[in-house]
Amino acid sequence: MRRDELPSPQKTGALKSLTEQEKPVRKHYLLFDSGCVTPWKREDVTGPTMSRPQSPEPALNVQGASSIGPGDEDAADGTQHSHRMLSFSDALLSIIATVMILPVTHTNISPEQEFDKSIQKLLATRIAVYLMTFLIVTVAWAAHTRLFQVVGKIDDTLALLNLACMMTITFLPFTFSLMVTFPDVPLGIFLFCMCVIAIGAVQALIVGYAFHFPHLLNPQIQRSAHRALYKQHILRIILRGPALCFAAAGFSLFFYPASYLLMVTVIFLPYVSKAASWCRGSLVGPREPPAHSLEFFTFDLHGPLSKERVDAFSDGVYAIVATLLILDICEDNVPDPKDVREKFSGSLVAALSESGPRFLAYFGSFATVGLLWFAHHSLFLHVRKATQPMGLLNTLSLAFVGGLPLAYQQTSAFARQPHDELERVRVSCAIIFFASIFQFAIWTTALLQEGETLQPSVRFGGQEHAFMFAKLALYPCASLLAFASTCILTRFSTAIFHLMQIAVPFAFLLLRLLVRLALAILRALPRLALRPAPTPPAPGDPRDDTRSLLHPAPC
Amino acid sequence: MRRDELPSPQKTGALKSLTEQEKPVRKHYLLFDSGCVTPWKREDVTGPTMSRPQSPEPALNVQGASSIGPGDEDAADGTQHSHRMLSFSDALLSIIATVMILPVTHTNISPEQEFDKSIQKLLATRIAVYLMTFLIVTVAWAAHTRLFQVVGKIDDTLALLNLACMMTITFLPFTFSLMVTFPDVPLGIFLFCMCVIAIGAVQALIVGYAFHFPHLLNPQIQRSAHRALYKQHILRIILRGPALCFAAAGFSLFFYPASYLLMVTVIFLPYVSKAASWCRGSLVGPREPPAHSLEFFTFDLHGPLSKERVDAFSDGVYAIVATLLILDICEDNVPDPKDVREKFSGSLVAALSESGPRFLAYFGSFATVGLLWFAHHSLFLHVRKATQPMGLLNTLSLAFVGGLPLAYQQTSAFARQPHDELERVRVSCAIIFFASIFQFAIWTTALLQEGETLQPSVRFGGQEHAFMFAKLALYPCASLLAFASTCILTRFSTAIFHLMQIAVPFAFLLLRLLVRLALAILRALPRLALRPAPTPPAPGDPRDDTRSLLHPAPC
Repeated sequence: MRRDELPSPQKTGALKSLTEQEKPVRKHYLLFDSGCVTPWKREDVTGPTMSRPQSPEPALNVQGASSIGPGDEDAADGTQHSHRMLSFSDALLSIIATVMILPVTHTNISPEQEFDKSIQKLLATRIAVYLMTFLIVTVAWAAHTRLFQVVGKIDDTLALLNLACMMTITFLPFTFSLMVTFPDVPLGIFLFCMCVIAIGAVQALIVGYAFHFPHLLNPQIQRSAHRALYKQHILRIILRGPALCFAAAGFSLFFYPASYLLMVTVIFLPYVSKAASWCRGSLVGPREPPAHSLEFFTFDLHGPLSKERVDAFSDGVYAIVATLLILDICEDNVPDPKDVREKFSGSLVAALSESGPRFLAYFGSFATVGLLWFAHHSLFLHVRKATQPMGLLNTLSLAFVGGLPLAYQQTSAFARQPHDELERVRVSCAIIFFASIFQFAIWTTALLQEGETLQPSVRFGGQEHAFMFAKLALYPCASLLAFASTCILTRFSTAIFHLMQIAVPFAFLLLRLLVRLALAILRALPRLALRPAPTPPAPGDPRDDTRSLLHPAPC
Repeated sequence: MRRDELPSPQKTGALKSLTEQEKPVRKHYLLFDSGCVTPWKREDVTGPTMSRPQSPEPALNVQGASSIGPGDEDAADGTQHSHRMLSFSDALLSIIATVMILPVTHTNISPEQEFDKSIQKLLATRIAVYLMTFLIVTVAWAAHTRLFQVVGKIDDTLALLNLACMMTITFLPFTFSLMVTFPDVPLGIFLFCMCVIAIGAVQALIVGYAFHFPHLLNPQIQRSAHRALYKQHILRIILRGPALCFAAAGFSLFFYPASYLLMVTVIFLPYVSKAASWCRGSLVGPREPPAHSLEFFTFDLHGPLSKERVDAFSDGVYAIVATLLILDICEDNVPDPKDVREKFSGSLVAALSESGPRFLAYFGSFATVGLLWFAHHSLFLHVRKATQPMGLLNTLSLAFVGGLPLAYQQTSAFARQPHDELERVRVSCAIIFFASIFQFAIWTTALLQEGETLQPSVRFGGQEHAFMFAKLALYPCASLLAFASTCILTRFSTAIFHLMQIAVPFAFLLLRLLVRLALAILRALPRLALRPAPTPPAPGDPRDDTRSLLHPAPC
């Protein structure tokens, strides 16, 4: 019912200004375009969920049919588009995912102290807790993504229920690390399982509410004749984890190893099943769903992730990790006036120089994380569809990115403990390598299905392909080179590391130039070998260079 | 030049899949629609900046003319849409804006210790530093917003320059608090001024680069004949602050009070000039720009803010503040196994109960911040254009939101120090009141220009108007009520506060019901007075209730 069409002078004026005004149209969370519809049912798609139906022009619907008019937002039930809420949820979840890096970076490994076994053990435990909680929260985030592919639009109640869902998810890291710190106390396992059950309960509530008011659902499910079947299927997926945790909580009272086994299943089941189906798909070919349940499987809950949510979640993690060290600096490194007077004889410069390495660590950390974000941004700019393996590799890359501040902290402290220097530089190189190689792996995975996942310009032979390759290969190569150099020139490991830190940003800035040079050289070499005295193309015309190299044409 | 039209089988296949595939279209940062074009030049607007030109359908252009085709993203210079980079920047800046709340929440005001003058002074200083850095970073964020209204599209170099800009901005809080801690040491002032100058330098570089490659500019500036004038104007605005800081740095060497005066001017000048022009506008009427420089002023750099950026920045702040206390809990409140054995005789329950108040504080903090986010989200859903005063009020609201974790921390510790209880509850109520009343003020400000700023449904007389009013008035009323109750029932102040904490979320959930009831009552009262024994409308039909109340029709 279009309320703003009621005849009243105020409304008429409002409608006029509606058409005149330029309005930003946001087709942000187009649930169909996020790829959760499998190709053979595409004709069922009538139109995208107009997430911001502010403009009356029907031309804004990509598929033509205008399923939602401008008045929809003003419906009596107050339905709204979900994208801002989902961005907010992604921000919250990215903070929660990275929270357990704080104890790791705050592990006080003072240079004077021996880096002995107990500290190593503590650090290793904390790093393991960080990686596990990162994984767990990412599983919860992925489940949240699926849930809101089912829900097309939201209203106030759903927004509030989502806040409740967020609050339950925020307890995962704490309950997990409690469980790890007290592995044989039932309470630890119990609390973690209660947390998972609470999350499941709220999500089941959300599903129940959405199905109770079908206009809130994803249009494809809404129109389906098997809505009840969908509801059961979705609830089954949502409650699978909590049910296992319920059993685990029960077992914790008398036989807790069984609890751990069940919980490992809960955490790793999504990844294992994804990997298994991917392997099967690669070996056997895409799985043909049984004909009788064709319609049922067209809403593929194991389909690709929503690219916007992958972007938003990744941005959150990059932002937090990039600023992690400045948070500590702002809090701890403003010298105390008393200290300055007594310890440094009133010299503020001396007091600040003492924390000099921390500032250097921050610069390096921000620069590296920022450039890794830049590579991620460049990659996903050209990605159309984020598949499951790409999502997993992205998670792994982000997990290692979280370790960078620690790495830089350690390398900046090396100046006082020369014999650890080599080891710290190597660890830092290793972390940078893994963080960037997983990004490169996303690119490789995308290339395997480049027709679906990538835009034409970056596919093999495409114009931007070489630049993308260079952007994503830069950090892996640089860190590998640095690591190898430290094996040969052990005495200069620090200098090598700093050199890499300074050289890589410049390499990124001059990337296009360097790639063109490299391509020109690669092109000139065979020609030099085949024909004497050729005229190499002028390097000043980048289009000719790239085009002729990538689309070999007779000279 | 449309590279993907080159005749090759690979490309033809690619083009085919381009048209077949559903592609999310994102018209996110439509610079014109963010309102930076003043109305009398609207006919110059030919088309929105197609920030994600992935689909060849020209129908996607709202204004009809397709200024950028699908091949543009594949241009040799690698231009890209800017919205993801701007979202990332907003995430970074929201973290930096709230960073100085950490020392405030970590101020250890142990209940056993007397809340004496020195601690009060320390806390007050830290709160002041937090508020000032919040303000400063928000000024920097607003400047960044303006800068990227000039720049329409970005390329790799601009993305990297933006990262550099972000890094320089991240140093503002530290240098500011250093300056405040050492007010009479020239180095403090000098470092802060250097930071501001560095920001100005990078932004000037960005402007210079963008004007050097005009295709990167906002289309309106791009097509203008007075591009050089624009460039000067923009550079003047960007370098105004740094120039003043340069002078301040100079003065710091021999007469630092002058430095502080200059810096106060830098920080407050934008707000003062905004307020002055708003007052002038309200009193005198909209300012008519001089006819000869009509075209020059049509790109109004003092125009409204981009709503998407306000949303993104606000979401970042809400997310960080909501999770602030769980970060501490995850880091500090996992009991040490040794402590549990020794202090609590192996009872994990007892160990956790000791930090019980911290968990309660987290619940309350998350719930309150989450609900304030919900009110903000509901409001901005219906806001078309965010004006300057609205932006300022939003900043003030966010600044107070940042104070909520501290407030809840303090109230949760009251159990041990009864005589402070009243004061802490009152402070908490005050902070909640101010955080929510500024939100309400945004709404009021928007109502003053409702034709431009709000959608029809929420304007006065609109259908959702009453709900919006209720959502935004709930927290101010509740906190005011709680504050007043503590004056009367001083002994039960804690209970009152907890009651409010529990009641408000339920009130939000049942808001629509309560509003309809209230409206029905309001409607029934005059009718009861005017005519005996009327038949009140059935409360079960919400549409009739609201419609007949808001659009009085003869019964």
